[in-house]
Amino acid sequence: MNSDEQEIRQLIATWIDATKSGDTDTVLSLMADDVVFLVTGQPPMIGKAAFAAAMRAQSGQGRPQFDGKSEIQEIQVLGDWAYMWTTLTIVFTPPGGAPSVTRAGNTLTILKKQNGSWVLARDANMLTVVQPK
Amino acid sequence: MNSDEQEIRQLIATWIDATKSGDTDTVLSLMADDVVFLVTGQPPMIGKAAFAAAMRAQSGQGRPQFDGKSEIQEIQVLGDWAYMWTTLTIVFTPPGGAPSVTRAGNTLTILKKQNGSWVLARDANMLTVVQPK
Repeated sequence: MNSDEQEIRQLIATWIDATKSGDTDTVLSLMADDVVFLVTGQPPMIGKAAFAAAMRAQSGQGRPQFDGKSEIQEIQVLGDWAYMWTTLTIVFTPPGGAPSVTRAGNTLTILKKQNGSWVLARDANMLTVVQPK
Repeated sequence: MNSDEQEIRQLIATWIDATKSGDTDTVLSLMADDVVFLVTGQPPMIGKAAFAAAMRAQSGQGRPQFDGKSEIQEIQVLGDWAYMWTTLTIVFTPPGGAPSVTRAGNTLTILKKQNGSWVLARDANMLTVVQPK
């Protein structure tokens, strides 16, 4: 495994840990200013500022709890760009005792190297709600 | 617009036309052997052979009708690789008089140049069913 691939794996681990601990600044440091998040059934979320606003709106309701598990299926480094396919499971627990929601599925992500560090540039999220058994 | 971007736009136009006319061989010629299609709520479809088998299974039930409209939001060429974000609308009409189903949403696609021609390598499909009004 080359060092770029290791750095990208570390970025994902840091992203999940920072999301769990509510460390918005760290999550924001891992994405490009012009990042685009594409999610099934929702309009695109364009730009780091939009992501930050959504995080702030969410934390205003009391901090939700996240747990996440990412299984990286493929990383392909293309010079200063890379793409990554992961299988992701996210358990989201809203504040106030509402039941958890588990979402699972595939993601396809474009990353770029910016000032020597990898950041998220485009993210396609194909997660769907997993019905409790 | 550079020639790579023009070729990628032409690939998408050809793909939609060939899908409409049921020209499976042409569609298959536009993807890499190890292509991966990621769709919300379904397992990944891996490899050109799997795509071909799915097309054949579908045509055995009488040929469905497709209509599609692709609006390319972004193409970024990275040497012999590229990524593309599109907004796609597909109208699928099953054989036998069943009602049409319209699906719309975003796609994020990885393309690569192979023997001088662009082909689809990875495709993330975030389309959802549009409810009739």
